[in-house]
Amino acid sequence: MRTKVAIAGAGPAGLLLSHLLHLRGIDSVVLETRDRGYVEKRQRAGMLEQGTVDVLRSSGVGRRLDREGLTHHGLELRFGGVAHRIPLTELTSGRTVTIYAQTEIVKDLIAARLADGGDIRFDTEVIGVDPVAPSVTYRQDGATHTLECDVIAGCDGFHGVSRHAVPGLRTYEREYPFSWLGVLAEVPPSTEELIYAYSERGFALHSLRSERISRLYLQVDTGDDIEAWPDDRIWAELRARFATTDGWELRDGPILEKSITPMRSFVAEPMRYERLFLAGDAAHIVPPTGAKGLNLAISDVTVLADALGAWYDSGSEALLDAYSATCLKRVWRAQHFASWMTTLLHKDPAQDAFGHRQQLSHLEYLAASKAAATTLAENYVGVAPTL
Amino acid sequence: MRTKVAIAGAGPAGLLLSHLLHLRGIDSVVLETRDRGYVEKRQRAGMLEQGTVDVLRSSGVGRRLDREGLTHHGLELRFGGVAHRIPLTELTSGRTVTIYAQTEIVKDLIAARLADGGDIRFDTEVIGVDPVAPSVTYRQDGATHTLECDVIAGCDGFHGVSRHAVPGLRTYEREYPFSWLGVLAEVPPSTEELIYAYSERGFALHSLRSERISRLYLQVDTGDDIEAWPDDRIWAELRARFATTDGWELRDGPILEKSITPMRSFVAEPMRYERLFLAGDAAHIVPPTGAKGLNLAISDVTVLADALGAWYDSGSEALLDAYSATCLKRVWRAQHFASWMTTLLHKDPAQDAFGHRQQLSHLEYLAASKAAATTLAENYVGVAPTL
Repeated sequence: MRTKVAIAGAGPAGLLLSHLLHLRGIDSVVLETRDRGYVEKRQRAGMLEQGTVDVLRSSGVGRRLDREGLTHHGLELRFGGVAHRIPLTELTSGRTVTIYAQTEIVKDLIAARLADGGDIRFDTEVIGVDPVAPSVTYRQDGATHTLECDVIAGCDGFHGVSRHAVPGLRTYEREYPFSWLGVLAEVPPSTEELIYAYSERGFALHSLRSERISRLYLQVDTGDDIEAWPDDRIWAELRARFATTDGWELRDGPILEKSITPMRSFVAEPMRYERLFLAGDAAHIVPPTGAKGLNLAISDVTVLADALGAWYDSGSEALLDAYSATCLKRVWRAQHFASWMTTLLHKDPAQDAFGHRQQLSHLEYLAASKAAATTLAENYVGVAPTL
Repeated sequence: MRTKVAIAGAGPAGLLLSHLLHLRGIDSVVLETRDRGYVEKRQRAGMLEQGTVDVLRSSGVGRRLDREGLTHHGLELRFGGVAHRIPLTELTSGRTVTIYAQTEIVKDLIAARLADGGDIRFDTEVIGVDPVAPSVTYRQDGATHTLECDVIAGCDGFHGVSRHAVPGLRTYEREYPFSWLGVLAEVPPSTEELIYAYSERGFALHSLRSERISRLYLQVDTGDDIEAWPDDRIWAELRARFATTDGWELRDGPILEKSITPMRSFVAEPMRYERLFLAGDAAHIVPPTGAKGLNLAISDVTVLADALGAWYDSGSEALLDAYSATCLKRVWRAQHFASWMTTLLHKDPAQDAFGHRQQLSHLEYLAASKAAATTLAENYVGVAPTL
């Protein structure tokens, strides 16, 4: 069996790549370990840069996003019990971000691929990739198969096998001394724009999914067990961290889902070896604070689709050869931003009194200086300038 | 014996305070442990914010500064073997910085005070201050004396006694895992603007004193002995750290002075207790990277002179009561900036590969983003906005 591009992983990266290739007349097969129900339900990010929205819209999978997505023009930094708005749009010549959950993008992309006769194989475990004589070996219904191809796209996430097929891969990694407890609650958001709160109790984030579903996060200790966080404790801690001096109130409601996620920075270089191209979480992980993970994945496969399109059209390998460096420039900018924003807003358990005062001084500076607020805004709404 | 304001320390803070009080008709006595020759020779900072220049000029001690000071409109960040100019003046609506050594300011201030009949007592060790029944006890020529006063200004530096007279003082401190080797060399500077260089070998700074004297700094290990740094090794290391891909050359010459200084951040709060007011290094130390130490000292005593002037004029204590909070706002902004710039440009011996790449990404961002460059510029030329 044979296809042009074998894609490991039916997350947003793999699915969008398959869709973008289809628009260029390039056939692909997507292989996914999990079943469709699982893939369409796993809760992940939900903050889209304008560039991400533009790609989805211009490739024809933005109709529901346009209808249901919430366009945001600012965010709030909250510290010392006071709210400070960062006017993202005003500081970035009109750019916006859009709230639309990753699960919804996945549903839209699966629906579009299937409507176009796309080949997505669920319950199919990729067990090996050969970057030199390009092929993917996978197990389905208890049998082992091989899919021959021109090119392999490794979109199989941090735990996938693709990355391990790159010999001499260099990896960079950092773990943070705290985790995020994420909550999905059936209650109208208490805010119209996201609230990033820093207090001596730790970080909290008020995000949203829709007009009736709130998404909330709490910094918790690494190793904390979700059993130690009954719903009452979660709401009490959220109220304490979001408390303002002017009596702002947090609405609560039934918690639909809760889970704890560790925070990690990770980069693997290069993102290409022979005919294998890594994209998204397979090559890099950012801590979620800057909301960059999904956007980087979309950016990677947009670059890859253009490069493959040029190669199939003209035979030129120039864009394929530039793929890794092009993506990594954006990746390292996002890594720095995500790590910067994480450090800015979290309470490091090893932090001393000097560090805490520095952190407050930094937050006050961001709220008071247009230049400083612009550095946050230009990185948040999209990729900031790089050399 | 009695004076209105007893000033401990004849550094730039104490001397300028005495001068500013004199202009308001308020008499003071300055007590200094060292002799005049020592005070006029100790090598310290030499980068003046525009606000500092304005204070010296408007108070009539800026004539030699105007003649000999070097006005700068930008600085250079150098990394990856490439120079990137930060146009300070362009990014801050016309502000400049001025190179003029602290020793020269001290000479100018001593000359002005003596010409005005000011009372500066060298070789006079302050051994105690009483903030409640205001007086200073000091030892001179083997005898102990007491100077009664209305107010004590503790301008006696980090090692002075004044700070210890504040009960319940809260201190914040950080030490850095590296030091600076500072060199004064008799060679025309190889650059017109300061060069802040980051390389895998560590930080280096090319500053200047005059058209024929260069001031150079190298990051060295904490605990390094100056004996381990013969002149040849210093020049070789400077050349390696400043090396560019386009063959820029560092001129060398006889080294007139060299010494190693540890890097420390320190803040003591509050800066006032009863009739004792702390100013400059007595209350706070910054690592030298952002060139803030001297400027903070000048700012402190400018605020204090205004507050004392208002008090003697009208009896109002409002400005005196606000003194500590007014100064500390600027101090914490400068602390954050100095620590930020130090971390940005030095090689932390504990830094891993991820951290090094983050640092490069941060430097590239500063060189490419106008907003990011402006955050550096607005903090460097003066105090950036605070809440």
